[in-house]
Amino acid sequence: MRIDILTILPKLLEGPLHDSIMKRAQEKGLAEINIHNLRDYSTHRQKSCDDYQYGGGAGMVMTIQPIADCIEKLKSEREYDEIIYMSPDGELLTQTICNHFSSYQNIMILCGHYKGVDQRVRDLFITKEISIGSYVLSGGELGAAVLTDAIVRLIPGVLNNETSALSDSFQDDLLAPPVYTRPEDYKGHKVPEVLLSGHAAKIEEWRNEQSLKITQEKRPDLLDE
Amino acid sequence: MRIDILTILPKLLEGPLHDSIMKRAQEKGLAEINIHNLRDYSTHRQKSCDDYQYGGGAGMVMTIQPIADCIEKLKSEREYDEIIYMSPDGELLTQTICNHFSSYQNIMILCGHYKGVDQRVRDLFITKEISIGSYVLSGGELGAAVLTDAIVRLIPGVLNNETSALSDSFQDDLLAPPVYTRPEDYKGHKVPEVLLSGHAAKIEEWRNEQSLKITQEKRPDLLDE
Repeated sequence: MRIDILTILPKLLEGPLHDSIMKRAQEKGLAEINIHNLRDYSTHRQKSCDDYQYGGGAGMVMTIQPIADCIEKLKSEREYDEIIYMSPDGELLTQTICNHFSSYQNIMILCGHYKGVDQRVRDLFITKEISIGSYVLSGGELGAAVLTDAIVRLIPGVLNNETSALSDSFQDDLLAPPVYTRPEDYKGHKVPEVLLSGHAAKIEEWRNEQSLKITQEKRPDLLDE
Repeated sequence: MRIDILTILPKLLEGPLHDSIMKRAQEKGLAEINIHNLRDYSTHRQKSCDDYQYGGGAGMVMTIQPIADCIEKLKSEREYDEIIYMSPDGELLTQTICNHFSSYQNIMILCGHYKGVDQRVRDLFITKEISIGSYVLSGGELGAAVLTDAIVRLIPGVLNNETSALSDSFQDDLLAPPVYTRPEDYKGHKVPEVLLSGHAAKIEEWRNEQSLKITQEKRPDLLDE
């Protein structure tokens, strides 16, 4: 899978996409993540990528020219399954969307900054608008990192043990059960006995009960779907 | 505001919290963000911070000792308004929560990784569990970066122009209206005339209409609240 991320602040993406699981996915050749600095595409003499908004008001708006030129160049090189814009007014990201996206070959992710991009970018080029949640961030970069991480870890072979992702929260519309590791007794706080019993069926039953109970308590909305 | 982030992968947090708006907030002394490497607190001879889970199953679990020692050390130094654990089964983050958190003095954010932390950490130390959305990430680091960014930008003085955050999506339960910048005509695609009119009241009216229309189309749930 190839992911092209378009941004005016590439530094923001350096840490999250170049360490740990994302790093290994790229080293294994399972994901190719390219970060494009939109300033490199600006024809403005100071490489500017933003300007005041029409109609007045606080906050700058990202101009169409560098974005359009970058998108058109990439589109001339290969077909994209989706050209995604990260925006608080996009469709709310869910695990179902992540599962779906993880089967794509090529996606492009545009990060807005300041007050966002010129509306014509969205009208002309964007095929999908995604929001990672009902809150506002400084820019789309963290959203793009979240989306990339959530998708790439689902590509078969990325996680060391494939069953690990399958037992995550949401994969079966339930939250994950509590987990425990050594020591058995931490200052008087003990691991539930069933987990030490070695009785696989009972452990499975306990975990299912816990998952259902936690989901009912914390996210009953997941059970309605 | 002081934010302490506890992680086994500090590199993942380097980019997002040390550039752009987060960098300026720290330079202005409005936010102090400290990243603590949990490995420094491990008493294990290989500085290990994880182990197999009781009851079997794929995925490692973060052990209680390094986390407990780090949290206890920080708590002995100052009072914390909240000790937050980033988890897919936490309370869904909203702009309302961000507004509330932005008034705090000191918060701690614990990042889980692998299958999460030993449940006893959550039972003994965590005062709030937060999820940034209904999807699973490789670890809590991106969630912590999202939460930090969403909160810090709301601290008065962090954004260059304070009215900028007030006109964001969600601050009035409405999505933001479309924005446009130069050129007026991009390959035949024009800026709406009202925005060029110079008529402040009409512009305001158009923006309110657009906000309401976009919210009704994309996020009718926001209007029900």
